[in-house]
Amino acid sequence: MFPKNAWYVACTPDEIDAKPLGRTICGESMVFYRGAENRAVALEDFCPHRGAPLSLGYVEDGLLVCGYHGLAMGCDGKTAAMPNQRVQHFPCIKRYPVVERYGFIWVWPGDEALADPAQLPHLQWAESPEWAYGGGLYHIACDYRLMVDNLMDLTHETYVHASSIGQKEIDEAPVNTRVEGSEVITSRFMENISAPPFWRAALRANGLDEDAPVDRWQICRFTPPSHVLIEVGVAHAGHGGYDAPEQYKASSIVVDFITPENETSIWYFWGMARRFKVDDSELTDRIREGQGKIFSEDLEMLERQQRNLLRYPERNLLKLNIDAGGVQARRIIERLVKAEQASDQVLARSAL
Amino acid sequence: MFPKNAWYVACTPDEIDAKPLGRTICGESMVFYRGAENRAVALEDFCPHRGAPLSLGYVEDGLLVCGYHGLAMGCDGKTAAMPNQRVQHFPCIKRYPVVERYGFIWVWPGDEALADPAQLPHLQWAESPEWAYGGGLYHIACDYRLMVDNLMDLTHETYVHASSIGQKEIDEAPVNTRVEGSEVITSRFMENISAPPFWRAALRANGLDEDAPVDRWQICRFTPPSHVLIEVGVAHAGHGGYDAPEQYKASSIVVDFITPENETSIWYFWGMARRFKVDDSELTDRIREGQGKIFSEDLEMLERQQRNLLRYPERNLLKLNIDAGGVQARRIIERLVKAEQASDQVLARSAL
Amino acid sequence: MFPKNAWYVACTPDEIDAKPLGRTICGESMVFYRGAENRAVALEDFCPHRGAPLSLGYVEDGLLVCGYHGLAMGCDGKTAAMPNQRVQHFPCIKRYPVVERYGFIWVWPGDEALADPAQLPHLQWAESPEWAYGGGLYHIACDYRLMVDNLMDLTHETYVHASSIGQKEIDEAPVNTRVEGSEVITSRFMENISAPPFWRAALRANGLDEDAPVDRWQICRFTPPSHVLIEVGVAHAGHGGYDAPEQYKASSIVVDFITPENETSIWYFWGMARRFKVDDSELTDRIREGQGKIFSEDLEMLERQQRNLLRYPERNLLKLNIDAGGVQARRIIERLVKAEQASDQVLARSAL
Repeated sequence: MFPKNAWYVACTPDEIDAKPLGRTICGESMVFYRGAENRAVALEDFCPHRGAPLSLGYVEDGLLVCGYHGLAMGCDGKTAAMPNQRVQHFPCIKRYPVVERYGFIWVWPGDEALADPAQLPHLQWAESPEWAYGGGLYHIACDYRLMVDNLMDLTHETYVHASSIGQKEIDEAPVNTRVEGSEVITSRFMENISAPPFWRAALRANGLDEDAPVDRWQICRFTPPSHVLIEVGVAHAGHGGYDAPEQYKASSIVVDFITPENETSIWYFWGMARRFKVDDSELTDRIREGQGKIFSEDLEMLERQQRNLLRYPERNLLKLNIDAGGVQARRIIERLVKAEQASDQVLARSAL
Repeated sequence: MFPKNAWYVACTPDEIDAKPLGRTICGESMVFYRGAENRAVALEDFCPHRGAPLSLGYVEDGLLVCGYHGLAMGCDGKTAAMPNQRVQHFPCIKRYPVVERYGFIWVWPGDEALADPAQLPHLQWAESPEWAYGGGLYHIACDYRLMVDNLMDLTHETYVHASSIGQKEIDEAPVNTRVEGSEVITSRFMENISAPPFWRAALRANGLDEDAPVDRWQICRFTPPSHVLIEVGVAHAGHGGYDAPEQYKASSIVVDFITPENETSIWYFWGMARRFKVDDSELTDRIREGQGKIFSEDLEMLERQQRNLLRYPERNLLKLNIDAGGVQARRIIERLVKAEQASDQVLARSAL
Repeated sequence: MFPKNAWYVACTPDEIDAKPLGRTICGESMVFYRGAENRAVALEDFCPHRGAPLSLGYVEDGLLVCGYHGLAMGCDGKTAAMPNQRVQHFPCIKRYPVVERYGFIWVWPGDEALADPAQLPHLQWAESPEWAYGGGLYHIACDYRLMVDNLMDLTHETYVHASSIGQKEIDEAPVNTRVEGSEVITSRFMENISAPPFWRAALRANGLDEDAPVDRWQICRFTPPSHVLIEVGVAHAGHGGYDAPEQYKASSIVVDFITPENETSIWYFWGMARRFKVDDSELTDRIREGQGKIFSEDLEMLERQQRNLLRYPERNLLKLNIDAGGVQARRIIERLVKAEQASDQVLARSAL
């Protein structure tokens, strides 16, 4: 269950620079490639000739050529040419709206008529030279909402990421969750604590005393369909915490684009945007490596949790205060899905 | 189909010494760990908070702490604590009666009220300093009854274990099967034959002439739910065979605890108990290695047999005299399962 | 969906020389072995005693001995002997007609009464000393008809085998398809073109100028149930093409025996028969290696095409002129299967 009329991150630009990429998004088998003028295109990964996956083909003169018998597909899903064939009446394949922005290829798996690039999230850090970004991609066998839950309740850091970003004070600090329109914000502030290893390293990288007591914050923002951006950071204690001047703090935005592959698996695009030492690409690599290691700790837990839930589909999970972020996010998701279903029914009726 | 009101071997003590162990027994997903006072505990492997497997957690102060968000579970299946939460009304998870005895952790997957440690088999060899034991564990994708059949008809040794314990005389010797209560005993005695390689080595290890003709015996004892203990040995011919004085023989007990994982897979705990050179731990290791190799020869046969039977579920297998041990064991198993089902119905009715 | 009353290639002789071979053909689990007088035999791979696969056993005195408990099976599917047992009333297992001919073991999975060795294809190249043959076997997860389609439409060479036998002129040359009885012939002739790499090497191996323009031909012959033999070759241009004298050409027969394992997988026996340098076994090896590499390029395409078709079972594929060979072959196959079903119904009615 996922909204289909929404922008999802499908892949990174480099994944389609050299050749087409086959990837299933929201249950739709798609091929992504660069067509005319190098523009990113997404089509059904199904050649209308004999059903071969177009992603095994190649791009020539802006057309996607099927690697089986040479049918040349246009970016509109209409066959443009095929050796020695008249192609006007070939059946079309589905095309999906695509936007390349912020260093990602975004796709709209639902109704093309509703796709509006203006609905893309606005990611200031991705467009400003004051920020640097590094990230990666994991494939995880779990419902995308389990990952939303995971990111909207950071008490798990204490247990899953005990040796890097976890610390007892997260559990102990009160959590605040609020809903603003279709956004859910969960925040936690810890004062005058010791920085855990990851943040000690960040303070050090930032030229700050890592042994000093710090104020720490985590502000998780869910926006539909399944993006979670988390402002995280520490500041030397007593300088205003989140609002402290730059010279006292190390902070960043944890970026999580969670794209359903199908009902029980996801493409998880994770990364970190930072506003310090933005030209230090070696630091970017080091942070990416560290974050990748930390985030990989969630994989087994989420996949095993998924299997447990499939085994006991009738069990109701607890909804504690710490779970409020995920609970609210699921409500918003459910509302969107219901609205889509209702709209589909209206369309179906009006088609009669 | 397996009795659930019965004691099964779940694991060996060393498997839970360092950290919790997740293992499915009779279709129930369980976590085994050492709780307060180091006592073995078995619970459902399902955290009531968000369904994470508790086996990914750790033990602290006798409580099993969920590795996802820190819920601390008591050995009674009731949540004992969780950071910043009131846990009185959290739903309970199932706990399973457990006994640690004879070098194994035994679990009762069925009705807790019926679990009686007095129903554990009495294993004299496991408690006496006059015996030494070594063994191992295999996971095999077959119905546990196929393994019972296997062990109750040792003519397979001639074919599956031709190079170690098999010999033509097993096939040729008459087999005797009798039922005593819920025990099935199948025995075979061979007189004045050559010892096969495994027994030649045992005679040698025991300081006896390995080239001399021997009397050989195999006495298989099935007890419910699925334990098979086999007295095996050879004695220099003419000294009384099974009843010969110790100085003429090499003998041991083959130990087989067969625990269903689910309908078509098992945890197979195999081993050998011996009454000679009991302090020679190097010999124990050598025997374990040899037995492990021999017993691994059954794996492919059993798994492929299982697949064949799943393919042709309607076919009736032959029940020859050599199969009588397995046939009788299956009757006892079936009786137990039917009794459980009848009892469940009575309980269900009385609950109305 | 495949005809069962037909001869399929099951294996090559060397596959059963050393020990029995278990292989599923047309959904039937079979064991192949050499029985009395070294004759190839095919039986159900199911021991009537306990359902073990007979293919795990061994042959002794012409009998197939079950590797589990020693039941000795005759080549007629009747148990011949078992240690200490009377076997007259043991249930029979199915036997399958087998013929060893042309360097292959052929099996008839259907009604034994209808099996007629005279219906084997006549393969002159396989019996004449004027020809040499080399080939191999691939297991591919696709419907056997997808492979028939593949071989009856060689325009795919231009795309799938671009670096060896493909060339643009295949697409451009008109294709001719005709049906003669139950045979489908698709042919294509290209005149005055450059030879692609594979054929340049063949010309060279044949002592001919590889740079000279050539006439090239491809004549694909489908015969039921699923054999495709393809006459392929090049001749120096202007000497008569297909009919040119031997000294101007390099030619061979591509051999494709496609045996369904089940509905979505095949045993694909491929090879090449040639009439030049027939005693050069090193050349045979080199051609086999080259052909194996080229033919392996089809695997991913066919398996991914199969998965796409399973995903969209309702979609109709295009039937272009280039697809006519496969389309006609499928019609013949369908006719055979329907005739078998009708005949089964007649038999079923007459049995009442």
